[in-house]
Amino acid sequence: MIITLKKGTDSISLKTLTEWLASQSIEAHVSEGEFSTIVGLIGDTSKLDTDLIQGLPMVENVTRISEPYKNANRKFHPDDTVVDVGGYKIGGGFFQLIAGPCSVESREQIVSIAKDVKKSGANLLRGGAFKPRTSPYAFQGMREQGLELLKEAKKATGMPIVTEIMDASHIELFEDVDVFQVGARNMQNFELLKELGKTDKPVLLKRGLANTLQELLMSAEYIMAGGNSKIILCERGIRTFEPAMRNTLDITAVPLLKKLTHLPIIVDPSHAAGIADMVHPLSLAAAAAGADGIMIEVHNDPQHALCDGPQALTPEKFTAVADDVKKIIEITGKVMNGAE
Amino acid sequence: MIITLKKGTDSISLKTLTEWLASQSIEAHVSEGEFSTIVGLIGDTSKLDTDLIQGLPMVENVTRISEPYKNANRKFHPDDTVVDVGGYKIGGGFFQLIAGPCSVESREQIVSIAKDVKKSGANLLRGGAFKPRTSPYAFQGMREQGLELLKEAKKATGMPIVTEIMDASHIELFEDVDVFQVGARNMQNFELLKELGKTDKPVLLKRGLANTLQELLMSAEYIMAGGNSKIILCERGIRTFEPAMRNTLDITAVPLLKKLTHLPIIVDPSHAAGIADMVHPLSLAAAAAGADGIMIEVHNDPQHALCDGPQALTPEKFTAVADDVKKIIEITGKVMNGAE
Amino acid sequence: MIITLKKGTDSISLKTLTEWLASQSIEAHVSEGEFSTIVGLIGDTSKLDTDLIQGLPMVENVTRISEPYKNANRKFHPDDTVVDVGGYKIGGGFFQLIAGPCSVESREQIVSIAKDVKKSGANLLRGGAFKPRTSPYAFQGMREQGLELLKEAKKATGMPIVTEIMDASHIELFEDVDVFQVGARNMQNFELLKELGKTDKPVLLKRGLANTLQELLMSAEYIMAGGNSKIILCERGIRTFEPAMRNTLDITAVPLLKKLTHLPIIVDPSHAAGIADMVHPLSLAAAAAGADGIMIEVHNDPQHALCDGPQALTPEKFTAVADDVKKIIEITGKVMNGAE
Amino acid sequence: MIITLKKGTDSISLKTLTEWLASQSIEAHVSEGEFSTIVGLIGDTSKLDTDLIQGLPMVENVTRISEPYKNANRKFHPDDTVVDVGGYKIGGGFFQLIAGPCSVESREQIVSIAKDVKKSGANLLRGGAFKPRTSPYAFQGMREQGLELLKEAKKATGMPIVTEIMDASHIELFEDVDVFQVGARNMQNFELLKELGKTDKPVLLKRGLANTLQELLMSAEYIMAGGNSKIILCERGIRTFEPAMRNTLDITAVPLLKKLTHLPIIVDPSHAAGIADMVHPLSLAAAAAGADGIMIEVHNDPQHALCDGPQALTPEKFTAVADDVKKIIEITGKVMNGAE
Repeated sequence: MIITLKKGTDSISLKTLTEWLASQSIEAHVSEGEFSTIVGLIGDTSKLDTDLIQGLPMVENVTRISEPYKNANRKFHPDDTVVDVGGYKIGGGFFQLIAGPCSVESREQIVSIAKDVKKSGANLLRGGAFKPRTSPYAFQGMREQGLELLKEAKKATGMPIVTEIMDASHIELFEDVDVFQVGARNMQNFELLKELGKTDKPVLLKRGLANTLQELLMSAEYIMAGGNSKIILCERGIRTFEPAMRNTLDITAVPLLKKLTHLPIIVDPSHAAGIADMVHPLSLAAAAAGADGIMIEVHNDPQHALCDGPQALTPEKFTAVADDVKKIIEITGKVMNGAE
Repeated sequence: MIITLKKGTDSISLKTLTEWLASQSIEAHVSEGEFSTIVGLIGDTSKLDTDLIQGLPMVENVTRISEPYKNANRKFHPDDTVVDVGGYKIGGGFFQLIAGPCSVESREQIVSIAKDVKKSGANLLRGGAFKPRTSPYAFQGMREQGLELLKEAKKATGMPIVTEIMDASHIELFEDVDVFQVGARNMQNFELLKELGKTDKPVLLKRGLANTLQELLMSAEYIMAGGNSKIILCERGIRTFEPAMRNTLDITAVPLLKKLTHLPIIVDPSHAAGIADMVHPLSLAAAAAGADGIMIEVHNDPQHALCDGPQALTPEKFTAVADDVKKIIEITGKVMNGAE
Repeated sequence: MIITLKKGTDSISLKTLTEWLASQSIEAHVSEGEFSTIVGLIGDTSKLDTDLIQGLPMVENVTRISEPYKNANRKFHPDDTVVDVGGYKIGGGFFQLIAGPCSVESREQIVSIAKDVKKSGANLLRGGAFKPRTSPYAFQGMREQGLELLKEAKKATGMPIVTEIMDASHIELFEDVDVFQVGARNMQNFELLKELGKTDKPVLLKRGLANTLQELLMSAEYIMAGGNSKIILCERGIRTFEPAMRNTLDITAVPLLKKLTHLPIIVDPSHAAGIADMVHPLSLAAAAAGADGIMIEVHNDPQHALCDGPQALTPEKFTAVADDVKKIIEITGKVMNGAE
Repeated sequence: MIITLKKGTDSISLKTLTEWLASQSIEAHVSEGEFSTIVGLIGDTSKLDTDLIQGLPMVENVTRISEPYKNANRKFHPDDTVVDVGGYKIGGGFFQLIAGPCSVESREQIVSIAKDVKKSGANLLRGGAFKPRTSPYAFQGMREQGLELLKEAKKATGMPIVTEIMDASHIELFEDVDVFQVGARNMQNFELLKELGKTDKPVLLKRGLANTLQELLMSAEYIMAGGNSKIILCERGIRTFEPAMRNTLDITAVPLLKKLTHLPIIVDPSHAAGIADMVHPLSLAAAAAGADGIMIEVHNDPQHALCDGPQALTPEKFTAVADDVKKIIEITGKVMNGAE
């Protein structure tokens, strides 16, 4: 961390600062220039509060050089974290396809889709029971009942379940769920993150619509600070000025996160684009960029169902995507199925 | 709402669509052109799910003409909503200054600041007990204990309390709080909004960092759909590319929201800028643009306290701001104090 | 185009509007609703000025349904445009690697890099002579002299030259250049676009940092309106909130542009990321997403040269990228070299 | 400037770096930590190329502490620059209203508007002759002929002319123009900026749609580096995610620019909002935030003319704005008219 002091800061103020830093086990190197004095901080600055220092009257600005996250930081944990979901591994060279409908709608629907996507190579089943919707008038999901139907699909196919949790008070309801999904809008719901940190279950943490990678990693750090390191990061598109698509898939996030953290990174191309036509090319791009998995929305009867989102693929189209993704990960040196 | 159909949509598909719309009490006007067919929807489309219609295979795109929010919409409720907080009114020509520290730190601190800001014209006291922090290692607030200290400040000054709620499970703890504040990061925490809608207490709803005004109004609509219409909207800065300030105050949001909704709108210039120097000019700008109130961070001893945020004013500087704001609202035709 | 009229618009105003539209060969379909009247416009609306109509006092809002670009629109020109650069084809299934240094620095440098990249599969040579720099104090390129050195590299290798033009007055200087490159900052330099439209030379048009795809296509339309259809679109990263990389590669732009336009689309991963480590994964992602080519910065001696940009690859690393890209385009069904 | 070196950088590389810096008259202070080595640069770093240093293999990242602009920097030029336009002063406490139509359309139109706005307190006349339009099919302005009509309006009223220049080759045509306006899309048209730097005429430089304040000041620096310091900066709205308005007025830019630079800053609320209703509140906000002037679009007959932009005011509404602005600047301590 670098602190630039205002011109004319007196030596007593400077001494107060360096002594306070010393009390926090931080060594301060002072360089005085013509227009400003620079203080370089050496030590573990991850627990220092930038805003707090910025607030001091003598300080012109504060710049973090080292990252404020520690548990999630690859510098301190060089080896890839491999998250195991019911025997299926993600990360460390293991690649997974996660598929299923946007919302659970009926027993027949979820079981039938689960069987279809399993056949094409998906090992994990996704499906929304609790649905975060912008409008209070839109379908809010089947909630508890949706969780029951997911369990039935798991029984029928053996696929572990990934589904979204929207409130800390629902954790008990999710007992039989295999992976907690934290949605983009809840990425900084810190009370929820803290509670998930106390569990022992994998968390699929989606990046917020306008959040930086550092903020995503700080949210992972919230969960890890509680003791739970089973985190799968998920890039699902960011908000940009482009109106022609719902969100803009930030493909660079994949290699950048690989550099910054040891946690596995998957991509959700369905939500990123919001258009089914885009799912195929974006899935290949995600695999080519080095993702550890892809999560895709699949619907069994998009022609008929009115409640089918525009971004869902038919099982046939999902099979075509899965086949091409398999070819791409051969080039990037990953293995599709982590389970023996 | 306008639905554009894909070229070559057959008449049977079109008939299915118009019949389904009729079952939702929506009349469809069809205009066939050379390159596309346009369906104009007449009726209450606020409860139609745009995504659902967009998902139909025959549909090229869907455009909302009328707003998806109804309770919050000025078109249906032309008169200004006036929110009354312990006798202090906001909206409908009544302007309020809300002031206090970023975080409650001690009994002495909060009572002393409350007395100071009351003297300069603030009627409502703000102060964080539960603090949403990007880092799990940063101070998370005094929580329950902070609420107790806020109550003591209220007893000492008579000022109603505005403080942030981060989780639906805390609603009971907030019994003596006068206004629930929903922070920018929780603007789309829909489970929380639903629960606040069931209460009878005013909600100060902050706009998310990268949310549109329509999304803000849809979040207000969540609360109103539950039966609670006592909502104060708050513009507190949006995320932009500008690194020189923490956030960019969207001043245009004030007159635009005034046009779109009957709910009162206040501005938080402290969080918008993140720099104390900017609070004075931005406060004047907010008042000049037509805001119904301003919420400002004030700290009693920024020179000394290490935990003082860079955006807090001293009570002296707050008094200077308050004095100029009073002159500005005379020009905009508002009244400072709604209480007799 | 859909015009929504304000509530209470009288029939005379409406008649004036429809008659004016009829004089522009546009048919108007009027649907009157309870809260607003909607006018659907049928005909060629690409030449109508949205701002102009929006300005009418009776108009609430205007929504374009069809695209305002015509020459660049795939709807009217379903077949892929193939741009031929000295026998090397781009588009319509033909893929090209374009490579070379950020700036031309010396005869030895440019000739040596040209030879290196040609060996690895690049057919077109890039290299900046006129350099747009944020700072007036930064190196502005070798300008005329740089163009001379590029010609020598072309003589030595047979590679056609792609280089940036910054002002319409330089067109004559670029006589021996094979492809005019228009940089991101000049994407809406309309006076330059008009002049390039009068030439018969391919134009590589880069998307601006914060421009929509429609704005990119409108800039292409400027060139095409002048008679020049030899346009290669280039996605080079957009500005987002992420500070960890210079720009965010908008990979979705590739399949989306393929849908909207018949013009070829290439990707510049070097500028998008601004970090050499990211060029390899982003190049694979671009090829996997369906790009018609990739443009990469290569430097012969990044270890030594101080003026080497952080995003340039060594020739060895470029060869590794080129080899993997060749494998990827086999999956997407493209052919590397369009020349016999 | 702070350079962070990669872990494991050897002492020879470090020595090479510090010696090269010394040759540029920069002193380097080295602080070695456990995880990284930090090099603090003391001296005039404004002419160092950040990208160049970032490109060195030993460098992890580079952070500018001091600003890269020097002529425009308030640190080196603490006194306000006052720009004099035909006797009317802007900056240093002098406030100006600039008004006129979006486009010059006829002799009658421009002369009549000029007379109207002068009566209400505007001293400078704006009006577009060369118009940058997104679409090649939209009206491109009256060009040379428009400049002639502006001169006639000047003759009739004595008002100096502000009008947009789009290409360096037009400078001679603008001989009788008093202020060159550089539009948002040309803010980084560096060839144009260089040529304007060689003239002796005031330049009104608009901020680009997605440019930072530092980039704006670097563009001012381009003009100043050529010898012309008569620059008026103009905030005219930035691109954000909000679809309800054309652009988002960045009001914080006003006090921030006041801090960073000595150049005067004006605000263009007409383009920012794109809606006439918003011009009044935004004009007051701009004045309250400390702007040195406001530039407003006024049209004499918006009810009739089809080519009237939605953001233009009638002369009557302009008078109402001007009257309120006069009251506001009394509070901020500015003087409306700089001419004796």
